[in-house]
This record gives sequence, structure tokens and C-alpha cells, in this order.
Amino acid sequence: MNVGFIGLGIMGQPMARNALSAGFAVAVYDRMESRCDALRAAGAVVLHSAAEVSASADVVITMVPDTAAVEDVLFSAGGVAEGIRPGAVVIDMSTISPQATEQFAARLREKSVEMLDAPVSGGEPGAIAGTLSIMVGGARPVLDRFLPLLQSMGKRIVYCGGNGAGQKTKVVNQIVGSLNLLATIEGLRVAKAAGLDLPEVVQAVAGGAAGSWMLSNLGPKIIAGDFNPGFSIRLHAKDLRLANEFTQQLGLDTPGTSLAHRLFEEAMKQGLENLGNQGLYKLWSD
Amino acid sequence: MNVGFIGLGIMGQPMARNALSAGFAVAVYDRMESRCDALRAAGAVVLHSAAEVSASADVVITMVPDTAAVEDVLFSAGGVAEGIRPGAVVIDMSTISPQATEQFAARLREKSVEMLDAPVSGGEPGAIAGTLSIMVGGARPVLDRFLPLLQSMGKRIVYCGGNGAGQKTKVVNQIVGSLNLLATIEGLRVAKAAGLDLPEVVQAVAGGAAGSWMLSNLGPKIIAGDFNPGFSIRLHAKDLRLANEFTQQLGLDTPGTSLAHRLFEEAMKQGLENLGNQGLYKLWSD
Repeated sequence: MNVGFIGLGIMGQPMARNALSAGFAVAVYDRMESRCDALRAAGAVVLHSAAEVSASADVVITMVPDTAAVEDVLFSAGGVAEGIRPGAVVIDMSTISPQATEQFAARLREKSVEMLDAPVSGGEPGAIAGTLSIMVGGARPVLDRFLPLLQSMGKRIVYCGGNGAGQKTKVVNQIVGSLNLLATIEGLRVAKAAGLDLPEVVQAVAGGAAGSWMLSNLGPKIIAGDFNPGFSIRLHAKDLRLANEFTQQLGLDTPGTSLAHRLFEEAMKQGLENLGNQGLYKLWSD
Repeated sequence: MNVGFIGLGIMGQPMARNALSAGFAVAVYDRMESRCDALRAAGAVVLHSAAEVSASADVVITMVPDTAAVEDVLFSAGGVAEGIRPGAVVIDMSTISPQATEQFAARLREKSVEMLDAPVSGGEPGAIAGTLSIMVGGARPVLDRFLPLLQSMGKRIVYCGGNGAGQKTKVVNQIVGSLNLLATIEGLRVAKAAGLDLPEVVQAVAGGAAGSWMLSNLGPKIIAGDFNPGFSIRLHAKDLRLANEFTQQLGLDTPGTSLAHRLFEEAMKQGLENLGNQGLYKLWSD
């Protein structure tokens, strides 16, 4: 099976590498050519446009920052839609608008190309270890066909429903994760101000009813002053913009999402965008 | 070792039973005598006041609803302080004010009685299984002496510092847990409004970076419409009042805690106090 992989950022790079390691023939493209070097060294074919990558692919994976970038890589000149063959499949693993996803799927279907939305959770560590959670929307038989490919990148592949359902599930994931992160940050701020031993606090809290992935994984980073991005504030803020938009369209009162959205926008304003999302901690000076 | 156990509610009852099962001689007291029946049947001695329970005890455990109840059980007529022997120890496993805890410890020390604050996390399931997290403040040698007793009730016993440090850690725990619970509730509300399959959503989200104890344990209850209390809204609201008070005294801006506090007070106003804390979900009619 020929796999085209477009977008070799923090997430895309290890994901493409895991597909390669699992024995898939992988051709890659990224606008920043230097990002392709490591994949080339690992045995991937490096090509020079999304259209080129698509021309020989049975399946094209896109892993880019946002809705506009997916639209661009799919439908602009030199994009996927220009090169892809009828019967091939696009799997968009980016996190983007559920509604836009439905539209992109419809546009691709006009070219006899099926699309899956398959956004991921688990961050850089999950991408590297191949243990991502993958939330899939689209036609189930298409998922079944490409399950081994997704299994090379993720451990938990959940079918969520038709086109867009993966992205909707990801919105839910980001709402839950954002508030868990805020919980971790606020808890550690209070612990610090109370004069408690922070690693002991994490040990005490993480094992009980207040435990979370965020506390266990990002808590120790915050304590160590490590604000390097596994997942950046910029991308997290983008996801919360999507989430906020989506809950408003649904007409829901979501005070938690609103708060998280507001705090991440504030972090953007304060120039924290390139920190990891645990850097939201720096919004407060205490 | 003779153990006195005061307060046989949802938490105290299984905790006392686990101490009994581990081979400790346990004498119990609860204001509601019917609550003592099961413990009597399991081999505990049932007595008729906190003072009586304390008179023969090497250690007295208190597990009651709030700060006022602890003060009452310790210092009112017929209370612990009236009966307890010099050299005995009080372990308060309730969740109460850190500041009041420091004062209670000082008052008991005048009677040559050491006190540990040892609030727990893990809810009713953790109390039944004997897998609670226990956050301990007080003198370390006192903790060391009673470690086997605490180990009969909990799996993770963490020493947090001097008198009050256990309660401070518990405040942190409740802040983190409350926001994780709000995350779970808001995520499920969005998922439902988006027409997603809720059990699939929990499966997809719980295994990744947005995973939490709340999502894995209370998410399925919410989906099943099970709002029975493992931990009640009333007690959770009480804990958030403590948390809010504590963060204000520290002079911190804690928007997440404030939001959770406001929502739980609203749930109290709407008459949801006897539901489990997952019943916060019912605050919204969508």
C-alpha cells in the first residue's frame, strides 16, 4: 500500500515514521523541506508537492495545523485534489472544523475520493510511541480498509460516525483536556502558594479521584519549569476557538469551555504561543 | 491496638470495616445509631458517645462531614477531648479547613494528644476497596506509628507536612477533581448535543491526553442516568467553599475554582444536594 504523508510537524514526523517502520511505503511532503530530511534518512520518498505525493498514493494522510491549512493542501493549486486518483482515500488527521470537514468530504467525493477525518489525541509522546488515540469519522468500510495503517500510529482507534464525527469527538476531547489542564495548573498554583511540596502533591492527588493524564504528565513538567511544547499553546488556542465556535453553534451554555478559551487567548496575547500548553501556568505571576 | 472510629457515613462505614478486617480492635460511634448495625455485625464494639470511644482507644479516627462537625465531635460535651488519654492520637480523616485543623491540633496538644489530619480521596469505591489516597499532615513519627492502620484503608499514603498540610493537599485535590468533573460533564453535554455515541466518546477520550478518573468513573454513570451519590453534591459544594475560602486567603486569582464553586452553589440552590457530584450534569437542561 502506497501512503502519502503531508505535514511533518511535531506530530506528523513521528507518525509518518511509525507508518514507515510498520512496513508501509511512505512518500512525504512538507512545505518546509528540511522537515523531510529525517524521514528521507529513514527510507521515505520525499516529493515536492501535495499533488505529487497524491499521484501514486492509495491513501493520503494530512497532518497540518488548522482548517485553512487542510483546505489549502487539499484544494489549492498543486494540492491533493489535483493529483489524487479516483478510488484513493484521504485521511485527515489534523484537528479542524467538523463542518468544514463535512464540506471537504463532499468535495472529494465528487472526484470519487472518500475521506476519513481521524484527529488524534496523546500529544507528541503518543505520536512517538505510536500510542495515539484516533477518533475516526467517515464510512466504516473505509476505516476497516485502512485500520492497519492507523494502528501503526495509534493504539486506540475509535469509530465515531459519519464524516465530521471524528472531529466532533476531538472537540469534546479538547474541551475535556483543556479543563483537566486548567485543573492541574490551578491545583499546582494553590499548592505552591500554600507552601506544599509539589512533587508530593502530584503523587498524592494523581492516584485518586482527581487523577488525570494532564496532572501525571504535565504536572511534573510544570514543577520542573519545563515549558517545551509537546503541544503548543498556539495549537491549543486554535482548538479552543474551534470548540467555542462549535458549542455556540449548538446553542450550549459551556462556562468551562468559555473560561479555557478566554485564558488561552490571554496567553496568546501575552506572547506565550510557542510554549507547550502547560505554559498556561505562566499566565499568573504567583 | 485499640482503634476508636467516629462517623459511619458513606465513607466511614467501609473504612471502619477495612480496619476491622485487617485485625484491628475497633470501637465505633455514630450519632445515628442505626449506622452502627453493620459494623456491630462485623465484630466492632458499638459505644454511645465520642468520649466513650476515646476512653479505651490508642487512636481515634474521625470521619464526619465538615469543620463544625469535627469541632463538635472533638471538643463538645461527651466529645473526644473529654475521654481521650494522654499519649493517644487523633486522626481526623474528614475534609475540613486547614486553618481550623491547625487550631484543633494545638488544642489537643495541650492534653498531650497528637493529631494527624488525614483526608482521603477516591470516593466510596475507594473506601470500599481500601484503595483510598490519604493525605497526611502532622508529625512524621506519629504517621509512621499508625501507618499499618492507614494502610488498611488506603493504598497511597502520602506525608504532606505539618498539621494542616494534609488538608491543604486535599484542597488542591478538590480543586483539581472539581474541574476534571466539570470537564467530563461539559464534554458529555457537547457530545450529546452533537449527536455522538456517548459510550464511544468516553472510550475515545478516556485513553488519551484528556483522560481522567472522573471521565472513566463518573462519565459512564452520567450516560447511564445514575446519579446516586458516591460523593454527594452537598459535600462537594462544602469542599469547594473550603477551597474558595483558602485560595482567597492566599490572595490567588483562581478562575477555575471560582467557576466550580459557583456551579456547585447553583446546584445546591436547585435542590440537587443529595445527588452524587456527577449530578452537576443536571444543572443544564440540554
